[in-house]
Amino acid sequence: MEICKEIAKLLIDVKDKKPLVHHITNYVTVNDCANITLAIGASPVMADDADEAAEMTSVSSALVINIGTLNKRSIESMIIAGKKANEVKVPVILDPVGIGATNLRTKTVERLLKEVRFSVIKGNMSEIKILSGVKGEIKGVDSEEVEIGGENIAKNLAGRLGTVIAITGERDVVSDGKRICIIENGHKMLSKVTGTGCMTASLIGSFSGVTKDYYLSAISGICAMGIAGERSYLSLKKSEGIGTFKIRIFDNIYNLKTSDFIEGGKLSEL
Amino acid sequence: MEICKEIAKLLIDVKDKKPLVHHITNYVTVNDCANITLAIGASPVMADDADEAAEMTSVSSALVINIGTLNKRSIESMIIAGKKANEVKVPVILDPVGIGATNLRTKTVERLLKEVRFSVIKGNMSEIKILSGVKGEIKGVDSEEVEIGGENIAKNLAGRLGTVIAITGERDVVSDGKRICIIENGHKMLSKVTGTGCMTASLIGSFSGVTKDYYLSAISGICAMGIAGERSYLSLKKSEGIGTFKIRIFDNIYNLKTSDFIEGGKLSEL
Amino acid sequence: MEICKEIAKLLIDVKDKKPLVHHITNYVTVNDCANITLAIGASPVMADDADEAAEMTSVSSALVINIGTLNKRSIESMIIAGKKANEVKVPVILDPVGIGATNLRTKTVERLLKEVRFSVIKGNMSEIKILSGVKGEIKGVDSEEVEIGGENIAKNLAGRLGTVIAITGERDVVSDGKRICIIENGHKMLSKVTGTGCMTASLIGSFSGVTKDYYLSAISGICAMGIAGERSYLSLKKSEGIGTFKIRIFDNIYNLKTSDFIEGGKLSEL
Repeated sequence: MEICKEIAKLLIDVKDKKPLVHHITNYVTVNDCANITLAIGASPVMADDADEAAEMTSVSSALVINIGTLNKRSIESMIIAGKKANEVKVPVILDPVGIGATNLRTKTVERLLKEVRFSVIKGNMSEIKILSGVKGEIKGVDSEEVEIGGENIAKNLAGRLGTVIAITGERDVVSDGKRICIIENGHKMLSKVTGTGCMTASLIGSFSGVTKDYYLSAISGICAMGIAGERSYLSLKKSEGIGTFKIRIFDNIYNLKTSDFIEGGKLSEL
Repeated sequence: MEICKEIAKLLIDVKDKKPLVHHITNYVTVNDCANITLAIGASPVMADDADEAAEMTSVSSALVINIGTLNKRSIESMIIAGKKANEVKVPVILDPVGIGATNLRTKTVERLLKEVRFSVIKGNMSEIKILSGVKGEIKGVDSEEVEIGGENIAKNLAGRLGTVIAITGERDVVSDGKRICIIENGHKMLSKVTGTGCMTASLIGSFSGVTKDYYLSAISGICAMGIAGERSYLSLKKSEGIGTFKIRIFDNIYNLKTSDFIEGGKLSEL
Repeated sequence: MEICKEIAKLLIDVKDKKPLVHHITNYVTVNDCANITLAIGASPVMADDADEAAEMTSVSSALVINIGTLNKRSIESMIIAGKKANEVKVPVILDPVGIGATNLRTKTVERLLKEVRFSVIKGNMSEIKILSGVKGEIKGVDSEEVEIGGENIAKNLAGRLGTVIAITGERDVVSDGKRICIIENGHKMLSKVTGTGCMTASLIGSFSGVTKDYYLSAISGICAMGIAGERSYLSLKKSEGIGTFKIRIFDNIYNLKTSDFIEGGKLSEL
């Protein structure tokens, strides 16, 4: 498939150019985000003090903002870094973890959307529904599956916000407001490990560092994690569980090849 | 044994109800706490800003407070979240990591005990001794074994504070002031991995989200970690060590079955 | 070789004395730092609030300061803890992660050097060049190899600052201003896992807790990580990558024996 070849090319570019991906993220999954960025071939950096966030962003190839454990201090840094990224044309990826679960999260995302232009916004169905004004139910920061209608929500919201919207779930949907891609890679065990969503945003950030087509970079990151999830699950012995599964995710992203995308990518554009 | 069957029932309930367990905890072991909560079948959330801690607690089934890397900001959030939990009848678990090691830790626990009612307080012998006013020696945040007399200390302190006291060590002791249970599961290698104590508190939190008998939920969490420790150790090859052991802990908690509690729980009530 | 026997003795001392190693470090790799400290046989503690940092330092055997995710709050704690360490003669190890990448990092290291005496400063070639005033290129917090001339830079800077300088890379160089040691253990995959540098500083801290010859403790920590890297790589199957490699690092440090230093240490003193 044509699109599988395109994302395969991006994988080569990531490994060649080793883009620096700046993260302002949560302290729960930050180590995993750093390692998955290294695993795909990019280079992670985390700097969240207001006094250095902009400076670090200005030498980076992408900025990932994740509100998983936001606080007053980090919110300011997100705004500062996001504005600088816009100024120097570094793509910004938003992972609005748990938006809707608390007022602080919802207000923070509203503020971020007002002050920063995002290249990709990635969330589960509940989060994207909140973003788009459709009432969804949030239970903590858990994921919910993409329901019928996900394609329309993604496309409309992407058009309205002028960004790429990626909805993750059993079926993932990516849209830039015009194109829509469905990704059917993945395994439900991915939802049993904390941080696989955050890591997907890091992968999207890594791919966004080497292309300006953020529709493609969002698809690449999600497809990569999906393929890694499938393989990691298949390799498990009966006595193994989410501990081993998580380690294999890093192994499989590390060993991901262009042929894996070309032969294993389950992508369909509508 | 009767009590093994009771905790086995709780395991089914955790997997059925997937209780949301809110953590205000340290940044050293927070990822492990999230993953162990998922492994047992519950759902973790971490939100420690004062502006959202209470709101997140009010939609949770349990709150775990761990002072491993406390600071002014997080202490306030612990108080706010703890009070809200009391108000909305969400059980609160306290892990007083390193109490006695610094004045800040001791004072913080004193303040927490004054302002928040806890359902379970879990610590190693040194920590619980400090809590009960018996002089213990603390070296960093290390564990010390339950000595002769642990049963009385646990029972008396539980009665005095009106909470369940859990003392972890080679032999674990749990008491609600009336009942006393000794747990002889576990392996000493658990003390060679950081965060196994914190993870045990997360497991207690997970079980506390599905019962009001916190004596039972404390036993369940400690017994689960103990069984996982035994199995993880037994599965190690000669060339493997604490890296692999830790991964197996997640695997074994993930694969824990009611029969494991019933056949493998080494529980004796006094 | 004589020096291999000397560091082998230190390994026995670490396992015997279990020195408490206080860390004020970044939230990206802090869990790995704690576990590697346990793996070598020492005992980790992390306490970064200004109200307890000095008190925790005063009961520790070494203090590791790592600026990986520094902020106003933690910088103050670093200064307070560093001064207390100097006062009570606890050795202080500095890992100036990403110095030169932002003005905040450079200024913070300058301030630390002014207010605290360090026993060991460990960095990659870029970082040490910045420290020594030689212009280096920093890309995020990535490592760069020790170039020709590393020996002189290390020796001169060590003499000038009155500390041990350790430059990590494909060839590692350690100097106390008089002696120079080249360490040729290691594997390039170590640079593909986040935190192996931070963990090396934790190992140096562990060894520094049992000797006053910080030239030796720096060599010990670097050589230990190098040997673990070699073995971890050799044990990998084709389908495995940085996930498994990282787990093996902990296993191999945990299983490290004096004979591994004596037979496997690739050390040469100039």
